[in-house]
Amino acid sequence: MDVRPGGYYDSIVLMQLQAALADLPGVLDAGAAMATAENRALLEANGLLPDEVGDAGPSDLLIVVKAETEKAAAEAIARVDALLVRGGDSGGEDYRPRSLESALKTLPGARWALVSVPGRFAARVAGEALDHGLNVFLYSDNVSVADEVALKTRAVKEGLLVMGPDCGTASIGGFGFGFANRVRRGPVGLVGASGTGLQAITSHVHALGGGVSHAIGTGGRDLDAQVGALTCRQGLDLLARDDGTEVIVLVSKPPVPEVARSVLRAAWGTGKPVVVHFVGFAPPARRLGPLYFATSLPEAAWMAVELTKSGKKEKARSAGTAERRSAPGYLRGLFAGGTLASESLLALANFLDPLHSNIKSDAARPLETVARSEAHTILDLGADEYTVGRLHPMIDSDMRLRRMAQEAADPGVGLILLDVVLGDGAHPDPAGELAPAIVEARRSREVEFVVVVVGTDEDPQGLESQVEALTGAGATVFEDLTSALGHVVDRLRGSVAPLEPAVDAELLAVPVVAVNVGLESFAASLKDQGAEAVHVEWRPPAGGDDRLLAILDKLRR
Amino acid sequence: MDVRPGGYYDSIVLMQLQAALADLPGVLDAGAAMATAENRALLEANGLLPDEVGDAGPSDLLIVVKAETEKAAAEAIARVDALLVRGGDSGGEDYRPRSLESALKTLPGARWALVSVPGRFAARVAGEALDHGLNVFLYSDNVSVADEVALKTRAVKEGLLVMGPDCGTASIGGFGFGFANRVRRGPVGLVGASGTGLQAITSHVHALGGGVSHAIGTGGRDLDAQVGALTCRQGLDLLARDDGTEVIVLVSKPPVPEVARSVLRAAWGTGKPVVVHFVGFAPPARRLGPLYFATSLPEAAWMAVELTKSGKKEKARSAGTAERRSAPGYLRGLFAGGTLASESLLALANFLDPLHSNIKSDAARPLETVARSEAHTILDLGADEYTVGRLHPMIDSDMRLRRMAQEAADPGVGLILLDVVLGDGAHPDPAGELAPAIVEARRSREVEFVVVVVGTDEDPQGLESQVEALTGAGATVFEDLTSALGHVVDRLRGSVAPLEPAVDAELLAVPVVAVNVGLESFAASLKDQGAEAVHVEWRPPAGGDDRLLAILDKLRR
Repeated sequence: MDVRPGGYYDSIVLMQLQAALADLPGVLDAGAAMATAENRALLEANGLLPDEVGDAGPSDLLIVVKAETEKAAAEAIARVDALLVRGGDSGGEDYRPRSLESALKTLPGARWALVSVPGRFAARVAGEALDHGLNVFLYSDNVSVADEVALKTRAVKEGLLVMGPDCGTASIGGFGFGFANRVRRGPVGLVGASGTGLQAITSHVHALGGGVSHAIGTGGRDLDAQVGALTCRQGLDLLARDDGTEVIVLVSKPPVPEVARSVLRAAWGTGKPVVVHFVGFAPPARRLGPLYFATSLPEAAWMAVELTKSGKKEKARSAGTAERRSAPGYLRGLFAGGTLASESLLALANFLDPLHSNIKSDAARPLETVARSEAHTILDLGADEYTVGRLHPMIDSDMRLRRMAQEAADPGVGLILLDVVLGDGAHPDPAGELAPAIVEARRSREVEFVVVVVGTDEDPQGLESQVEALTGAGATVFEDLTSALGHVVDRLRGSVAPLEPAVDAELLAVPVVAVNVGLESFAASLKDQGAEAVHVEWRPPAGGDDRLLAILDKLRR
Repeated sequence: MDVRPGGYYDSIVLMQLQAALADLPGVLDAGAAMATAENRALLEANGLLPDEVGDAGPSDLLIVVKAETEKAAAEAIARVDALLVRGGDSGGEDYRPRSLESALKTLPGARWALVSVPGRFAARVAGEALDHGLNVFLYSDNVSVADEVALKTRAVKEGLLVMGPDCGTASIGGFGFGFANRVRRGPVGLVGASGTGLQAITSHVHALGGGVSHAIGTGGRDLDAQVGALTCRQGLDLLARDDGTEVIVLVSKPPVPEVARSVLRAAWGTGKPVVVHFVGFAPPARRLGPLYFATSLPEAAWMAVELTKSGKKEKARSAGTAERRSAPGYLRGLFAGGTLASESLLALANFLDPLHSNIKSDAARPLETVARSEAHTILDLGADEYTVGRLHPMIDSDMRLRRMAQEAADPGVGLILLDVVLGDGAHPDPAGELAPAIVEARRSREVEFVVVVVGTDEDPQGLESQVEALTGAGATVFEDLTSALGHVVDRLRGSVAPLEPAVDAELLAVPVVAVNVGLESFAASLKDQGAEAVHVEWRPPAGGDDRLLAILDKLRR
């Protein structure tokens, strides 16, 4: 065993060192890893953690050899230095710049920096790339959230993209960054906080005969509350302005509600159909307006390809968004049906805030009293608290009619959403009671009524005549809840201003020219694909020594 | 204003009283409601709560009149007694039994009791119905969970169904109970903890040209942890044995995880395709084995109708379930792709327990150490803790190969799930390293390897040859994650024994014969539909006085 304190070791060098040690005569197994708690546990599980390891820490390199004899082990350890040197040798055919700055002299047209150095050095290198006006593909993981926020906040101000940290893949104009599958070019553009998610979807799109315009990775934490989806929103905006992109796919872990709302509003505002797949998120519907919600990676791909085929381009809608009125006021949903109320609540919570309800749900805030609505409110009027000694609102409209008048008189209210459930057992003519009340309410104030009617042509009330009566009263009527909710969201969602200054759309239009810092294979892969790329023979400043680095940082400020 | 302490008032009588009072000369508005906190707030919002109300409580009736003059108000209040008598008058053409017992003498073939008396009397009446061997449709709300659990536990023991409390709808052999839409008969059977959910789906099925066999309501709380889906599981079992049902739709609020697992396993065990719509639930996929996950009410209907058209009857699978082996052991998922790991975790959490992971998620328990798996475990080997100073597992297989050997040697392990992500930047031949390791692992123990390969035919590694190498090593290989997960669940989910004794399947096959206690309109509606029904002229024992009722209950015990 050998412990090398402090310093920088390239992960490829470590991989090669470990393999070379294991190949030596008499050696049974070998391990070479930074001595983090996790790596120590992993070595131990492989029987590769001797007792004498002591208190080696995360920036110390642990080299362990298990051999047939003590002699073989000692001989192997004695060769570590030689192997480290050999591993570090990079063949050296070309001239290799040793800094970003010198690399840019050989490649002045570069717009991209690919950064895959070890995590603790990564923010520094990415910052340097921004200094040079480069957009950054930041593959490195083990970068702090604080560093991510600082990098992205700065990048947004300068109209630059920082994809990452921990961004495994991207594809810009057909050139794959990091890990990327080779796929046909075509009209599907992607933004994703998920590397293998993007890879799986682009692969499936290809298998289905579709093609990809661009895939913009954001790093796995971009939609976390702290980062606030900065890269994601830049990406959506870029794809919205990209003529080669007809359909957008957005994939991520489920964001916290406030981030989800801003991202979904931004997606809606692109004017293009957007397939949303938040892994482990409860979709509000299959489709709400231009948003299509997928439940798995293959399905997201399938939906995107189908949308490009069907030519549902929503472009007409896009034109309309420019002259969008401001939201018309608060929503008040007055439901007789509990499930219709719940489904509405869950869907609308993705767009409206604050949203209140008498339904106990994480998606809504409680009301102070069931007798008065607040801001946006969805009420289940069939809930226990409304029906003590009172008939269900499907039979007796009295309470709902009173509530409609109350809500319509509230000057903050712009839209009232109702359900009408027909069938045996229900009121013989609900529209006959609701329609005059709607007319009456609209006489004094401009309030929109949206009604979803649930029923069949065989129901005793007659579906068609009920719909006609409500439409005649000036209500907007739908025969399924999802369509009604799509309409409500379109009226009320409000718009999200794109981040300023916008990232130059040309970034997606011109061939990729990139500087690569870190894993050499990423530069090789770009060149294989026909892009211009220069690899930087990078070494950390101060030999990677943490204390010296801290001093250097202080001097820079 | 008038306050009538204690006692029982039928909600129809109250509705009629209020309407009659409001129609009297000089009266502007009127309210008649039990004085719960909520009703007081609602009256107040309508300007109908005078100060002198005092401390009237939930079992007191509040009658309020707002009139042009004090005289008109006094005259109106003076007529309350007369109006209450008139309201209570039921026309009286027929002989009307005054108890369940006497009703059953006129209708000895009755199998059903429809109960819609006010909540505080409902459990008592439902219990009486069970005494007589009747299945219960319990429309009443405001029934305690404890009463629900007691009723259902007893019903299950006696092979009877209790649909409800707060069950708004059901349809048995085409006869609608409570609120029900008139729909074509056909092969779609439904079980739902959601009244309007069932109504919306059956209406949409009809609109799409499909038809309904039966719709079994369970009451909104059936899938809560305390009730444990007792009625839902009985319903699934009934529909599984019903020849007229080809596709089952299951709709509910999202259940707590342990209930979701038991219900989804029971659904899988029906041997029929089941469309699942848990409102506000994150579907694990569009389809897992015979389970199809919908994201909205209209979509659930559409999926069910499509399934009946496509004739995907899964019946072959059904035969197989009888001779099902026990689950082969624990699952260990070793992923290079983070999103693939997360999506697997979320899907499998619906079926496997306990499930551990290094991914922070509500769906999984944490591991004590990342170096050792526990029970079912899903690992994201590309996570930060595994990659300090180490290449990503998509490039360097060393750690995964070691882990595969470690897991395969664990005698509790039956199935190992892997992903292989191809493309530029990734390992040039991952299958070349994994395949021999799979062969080696399977040499000593019977372990199944399931591999999902993500890639395209243009990827440098070659999709086809990678798949072949893995298949050749004895792995079960899929090209999309959803199919792989379906396979894994099918192998590992275990089975759920149906509740015993089973509810007699004949219940769905014979025409409905029912006794109705509560809302008279429900009996009328059943008769309209051609069913045999008798309405009971019910009055609560002890005049509905709470104290006397408590004494009566004590005497009964």
